[in-house]
Amino acid sequence: MSSEILPSETIVALSGGVGGAKLALGLAKHLADEQLMIIANTADDFEHLGLSISPDLDTVMYTLAGINNTEQGWGLANESWNTMDALEQLGGETWFRLGDRDLATHLERSTRLRRGESLSDVTQYLCEQLNIGCRLLPMTDDPVRTLVVTDQEQLSFQEYFVREQCQPKVLSLDFAGIEQATAQAEFLNVLESDQLQAIIICPSNPFVSVEPILSLAGVRDRMKNSKAPVIAVSPIVSGAAIKGPAAKMMRELNMPSTVSAVAAYYGDLLDGFVLDQRDQEMEPEIAAMGVATSVQQTIMTSLDDRIALAQSVLSFAADLASQ
Amino acid sequence: MSSEILPSETIVALSGGVGGAKLALGLAKHLADEQLMIIANTADDFEHLGLSISPDLDTVMYTLAGINNTEQGWGLANESWNTMDALEQLGGETWFRLGDRDLATHLERSTRLRRGESLSDVTQYLCEQLNIGCRLLPMTDDPVRTLVVTDQEQLSFQEYFVREQCQPKVLSLDFAGIEQATAQAEFLNVLESDQLQAIIICPSNPFVSVEPILSLAGVRDRMKNSKAPVIAVSPIVSGAAIKGPAAKMMRELNMPSTVSAVAAYYGDLLDGFVLDQRDQEMEPEIAAMGVATSVQQTIMTSLDDRIALAQSVLSFAADLASQ
Repeated sequence: MSSEILPSETIVALSGGVGGAKLALGLAKHLADEQLMIIANTADDFEHLGLSISPDLDTVMYTLAGINNTEQGWGLANESWNTMDALEQLGGETWFRLGDRDLATHLERSTRLRRGESLSDVTQYLCEQLNIGCRLLPMTDDPVRTLVVTDQEQLSFQEYFVREQCQPKVLSLDFAGIEQATAQAEFLNVLESDQLQAIIICPSNPFVSVEPILSLAGVRDRMKNSKAPVIAVSPIVSGAAIKGPAAKMMRELNMPSTVSAVAAYYGDLLDGFVLDQRDQEMEPEIAAMGVATSVQQTIMTSLDDRIALAQSVLSFAADLASQ
Repeated sequence: MSSEILPSETIVALSGGVGGAKLALGLAKHLADEQLMIIANTADDFEHLGLSISPDLDTVMYTLAGINNTEQGWGLANESWNTMDALEQLGGETWFRLGDRDLATHLERSTRLRRGESLSDVTQYLCEQLNIGCRLLPMTDDPVRTLVVTDQEQLSFQEYFVREQCQPKVLSLDFAGIEQATAQAEFLNVLESDQLQAIIICPSNPFVSVEPILSLAGVRDRMKNSKAPVIAVSPIVSGAAIKGPAAKMMRELNMPSTVSAVAAYYGDLLDGFVLDQRDQEMEPEIAAMGVATSVQQTIMTSLDDRIALAQSVLSFAADLASQ
């Protein structure tokens, strides 16, 4: 049967928000704490109402802590909205919905960042408070900000994503600050580690969640040079994104919104690609790119689905590593 | 009988937090909106969790808007504490209790201050949103911060007042920034106005709530030179403060905690002094200072009490003005 990940081996997972966080949770449930490092995109971080907000980091963190709001798909479970209601009465900006409990995260993070702590340190601190055992790190401690150039105006990512509900047509994306940013040191180190057994690109938006991580100096090269296989799990199923604007963006960026287009986008970075059963007919097209494929049930509805997909991806990685 | 305030006449009230706000509300209920200007102490403002917090301004503002928490004595009615609860779980600083709805005020104020608006502008904006008709202004737009020198350590006012619950012995008080601060321009102007009919020092802590206002360059001189009578309402009744550390501070600052000591503290600034019925025996002592006296029921439990005291104080002022 399939190979297994050994206790001494390390897995790195690159994640954006919701979709990525689901697989990250599956990995965290399956692996020992010390085996897993999750790197979250921070290019959609922003400053709002004076608070430093890290949407992807928080989505992963809340998901790993089991306190995320599964119905809403973002934010915290059992959330209340009294600050936002009061802010609305004061005529304040409420398009970015900050729940009362979620606000505590942003207040604490902002306080610590102002005090001079790095985002990595703050994230580690918050994870400890929330009893998260595995390592969750931002892709960088430096500010990187996705700018969405649309047919109407240039928007920050959250303006595009939340305020404008992804309605404007995307012409191009820019990651301001990416050239000056240094990838998280532990992340760079683990990419060069002999213990590294797999680099998993979670089913997150390739353009705005994964691309910023890959664009940090040293990351792509180290991923290519790593002996560990790089495996992407498709965020596209049957031509649509499970969540978010990935499919719409693909069309606007003049590529078909298909799983093969996702695989082609990652290109020679990939050793393996996990696609959904519903896209099985595209397997030969991806295999023809020289990328190993694994067809799975990738839509994660239950916790069991998340763990099952994590197990399948890890087995696929172990198979590729043993080849 | 007693004289009346004419519609063209203006009243200025100097206020700290809770006690002052009660009389300010009584004045606001009795006077037309355009007749009343309330100047709030800002020396107990502070920056906390990255937010600009103005406790006295907010207490007056919430009281005037009728949304203050009367049981608790501070903050908003119908408040919830979910952000604080979550912040506590994250190991954050929760000694200064910020309610969920109250947080919106601080977020909006802080956002506007960062944008370059003055505290006066922000206060006016918030008052408009809360349908407050009279003018409420900070004593200054510049930062002034009360430092409490205690027998243990030097504390910011809120650290002394809230975190340490006024326990440390006060040795002296310092208003950092007071010499560089400019009193609010409208306030300075109205003190020179011919329309000014009374300057009322509300029943607030003389040392930490009123003294900072009086210490701003130009304020004390203009009050002395004004034709309008300056009337203080005693915050001390029967040797105790209705609320807060005024009486304890008086003892620690080596003065008796009596109404005459309050009158003596304000000294020749006063034309009139309102003391409680329970302190009637002190009236001759105060009259001997050359200060007119008015004995009233000064403890304000109900809204009617607030309005009745406001009316009495205004009648007293009109009597003094007509002399």
